[in-house]
Amino acid sequence: MFGCLVAGRLVQAAPQQVAEDKFVFDLPDYENINHVVVFMLGTIPFPEGMGGSVYFCYPDQSGMAVWQLLGFVTNEKPSAIFKISGLKSGKGSQHPFGAMNLPQTPTVAQIGISVELLESLAQQTPVASAAVSSVDSFTEFTQKMLDNFYNFASSFAVTQAQMTPNPSEAFIPASVVLKW
Amino acid sequence: MFGCLVAGRLVQAAPQQVAEDKFVFDLPDYENINHVVVFMLGTIPFPEGMGGSVYFCYPDQSGMAVWQLLGFVTNEKPSAIFKISGLKSGKGSQHPFGAMNLPQTPTVAQIGISVELLESLAQQTPVASAAVSSVDSFTEFTQKMLDNFYNFASSFAVTQAQMTPNPSEAFIPASVVLKW
Repeated sequence: MFGCLVAGRLVQAAPQQVAEDKFVFDLPDYENINHVVVFMLGTIPFPEGMGGSVYFCYPDQSGMAVWQLLGFVTNEKPSAIFKISGLKSGKGSQHPFGAMNLPQTPTVAQIGISVELLESLAQQTPVASAAVSSVDSFTEFTQKMLDNFYNFASSFAVTQAQMTPNPSEAFIPASVVLKW
Repeated sequence: MFGCLVAGRLVQAAPQQVAEDKFVFDLPDYENINHVVVFMLGTIPFPEGMGGSVYFCYPDQSGMAVWQLLGFVTNEKPSAIFKISGLKSGKGSQHPFGAMNLPQTPTVAQIGISVELLESLAQQTPVASAAVSSVDSFTEFTQKMLDNFYNFASSFAVTQAQMTPNPSEAFIPASVVLKW
């Protein structure tokens, strides 16, 4: 489902599946890595309404795994380039790989992909220094999600003439959703 | 043999083979592309002593193809990220796709890969603004080539005791090659 490419090295297309919805690529010799590309292979899309959060995991000085959120891949944006060379001394963030205890080797880092609801992804903020191009920006991702929500919500839209009498149902004007 | 990935889009793994040693990927809507990743799929390596030069081709205002050398992929460095967003107004350079007359569409650019001798690649200078990370730098590529040449040359090295009498054969001390 996913591929991972370290700039300058061979592509990896077989992540370790550590849970039903979690995938991990090893990054050997990670101190010499500047950029990582994460992409969907194009064979299997995400289930409707889901996407993937992409994490960088590296061992701190005591060998503990530090996780940082790099960004997202979705069916609409199935690939992204991340700069990881500036992250190696950064602080860890909340992450969904907690209980997995991936074995840590001093020179090996990981890319972790967690399949989650798009709504959940939209509430997560990646580390700013990981974004390589403006195309990968969180703002655009959020805008796309809002567009999707508007398309989704408006597919249920009815005009007053079509409304069946049901006093308990509340209706929101489409223009309100669009403004939001 | 090759894959191509525009950051944010689906991966492409089926280039058009326009000659025995030339491969072309189409880049639709190229004005909205910042970064392109070119990589070997890992299935077929380059023949011994060969590598690939990677070109960006876009239509100028009169619809003529403008080619710019982005960099290289080799068996030792089988992938590279290139920034093409700064190149769109640049000048064209010499290229090996001359006689092919690829059809030009206003919004579609191309990535062209030409399989050539490593010696020939080492004499070509990519546009500087295309390099994304220092790992992709030409200096390192050249250094690697020199290392390879030293390894290659020293595999033929003999000590004086091993020399068979042959007055017409000249010998170069390995230290000279190493210094060069």
